[in-house]
Amino acid sequence: MGEPSREEYKIQSFDAETQQLLKTALKDPGAVDLEKVANVIVDHSLQDCVFSKEAGRMCYAIIQAESKQAGQSVFRRGLLNRLQQEYQAREQLRARSLQGWVCYVTFICNIFDYLRVNNMPMMALVNPVYDCLFRLAQPDSLSKEEEVRGPGKGRWVGSLTQPSASPPSMEVDCLVLQLHRVGEQLEKMNGQRMDELFVLIRDGFLLPTGLSSLAQLLLLEIIEFRAAGWKTTPAAHKYYYSEVSD
Amino acid sequence: MGEPSREEYKIQSFDAETQQLLKTALKDPGAVDLEKVANVIVDHSLQDCVFSKEAGRMCYAIIQAESKQAGQSVFRRGLLNRLQQEYQAREQLRARSLQGWVCYVTFICNIFDYLRVNNMPMMALVNPVYDCLFRLAQPDSLSKEEEVRGPGKGRWVGSLTQPSASPPSMEVDCLVLQLHRVGEQLEKMNGQRMDELFVLIRDGFLLPTGLSSLAQLLLLEIIEFRAAGWKTTPAAHKYYYSEVSD
Repeated sequence: MGEPSREEYKIQSFDAETQQLLKTALKDPGAVDLEKVANVIVDHSLQDCVFSKEAGRMCYAIIQAESKQAGQSVFRRGLLNRLQQEYQAREQLRARSLQGWVCYVTFICNIFDYLRVNNMPMMALVNPVYDCLFRLAQPDSLSKEEEVRGPGKGRWVGSLTQPSASPPSMEVDCLVLQLHRVGEQLEKMNGQRMDELFVLIRDGFLLPTGLSSLAQLLLLEIIEFRAAGWKTTPAAHKYYYSEVSD
Repeated sequence: MGEPSREEYKIQSFDAETQQLLKTALKDPGAVDLEKVANVIVDHSLQDCVFSKEAGRMCYAIIQAESKQAGQSVFRRGLLNRLQQEYQAREQLRARSLQGWVCYVTFICNIFDYLRVNNMPMMALVNPVYDCLFRLAQPDSLSKEEEVRGPGKGRWVGSLTQPSASPPSMEVDCLVLQLHRVGEQLEKMNGQRMDELFVLIRDGFLLPTGLSSLAQLLLLEIIEFRAAGWKTTPAAHKYYYSEVSD
């Protein structure tokens, strides 16, 4: 959060021309079409979850540069407009591409994390971000994976560090990742909705269809994480993130 | 904990003669056979879980009375000896009578809670109490009940206040009840064993045989309770202990 100390942004996954566009937007925002830049960034974020995880930092830098150079916020307005469009069509996006939907949530949470107005998160994003997380916590998102119970202890315990060994669980993964990153801030902005979100998460354990073992571990961990004041206790860290010893 | 303010003990479930014995033990301990009194109390505790839940307070009062009157600890020695005998034969007790076993754990935890030496819990009881709780957290204790999944939300949520609506889950019930009462003190005496106990509890969610919905809720609640510093947050209280509203 705050202004990045180095102007290093992971834009290698863009084509050469777009990389140039982004570099110019950062250095001389007045020289490029900033609405186009916003669209390019959102489009790319929906396809590239690695990029969407840290796009917020670059967006913040462009906003700062534009504000400093011209006292304007064309880029920010363009960005928020696109975010809102995608937000309104989120069910269609999810139906079309689960990956795109997960990238979108990653992106909007990252924007929420980085964009600041008077050093506060943007109020306008609080409810959209919550709505996305609520969507990830619906029964069909929590339990849609195949039930894969490991052969008892030792298989999954400690496996949160070994995603390759686990069945895909994209939406649950995304939900807990975002809560780790922005949960505490979100709760400060609206504690009641966080309570409601955790009702859904706890209810997940009671779903008639069951949760995968990995999903159970992920949800258990985030429940402990929040209960401990958005911190991982040493014992929880050892349980969830250490290699299995026995 | 500490000296009870009123000498009111729930001894109505004893026969008249034993009630008299207990009353005398409290008022004039030198006039009765205190080893017999200890045995009477333990025997009754193993049969009456309601009594075993608060026997510690009376035991503490008899110990205080004997110490004051004669500077001796015949009763305490007798009590701890019997507790140790039962402890050593706990697997047989459990096999013979699940109810008796659960009453025993309730009793030893209550004794741990009330008996103080220099205002500290008795070190000698820490490991036996932990061993009992570890036994309650073994897979066969956690998952032995029939899997009863309710028809989705609304059936079990909030049902921790409605035990009559739930399948029996004696050992899980006992485990979480004792952790609510003495978990924090136990952790202070030996934090590592508490960490190990919670590894078993978390592992419970991954058991191939599954947990009943009620057991899941009970364990989830105790995990949150400990993570929050042995406290129930208002949101957790609402989730686990309020009537279902929708």
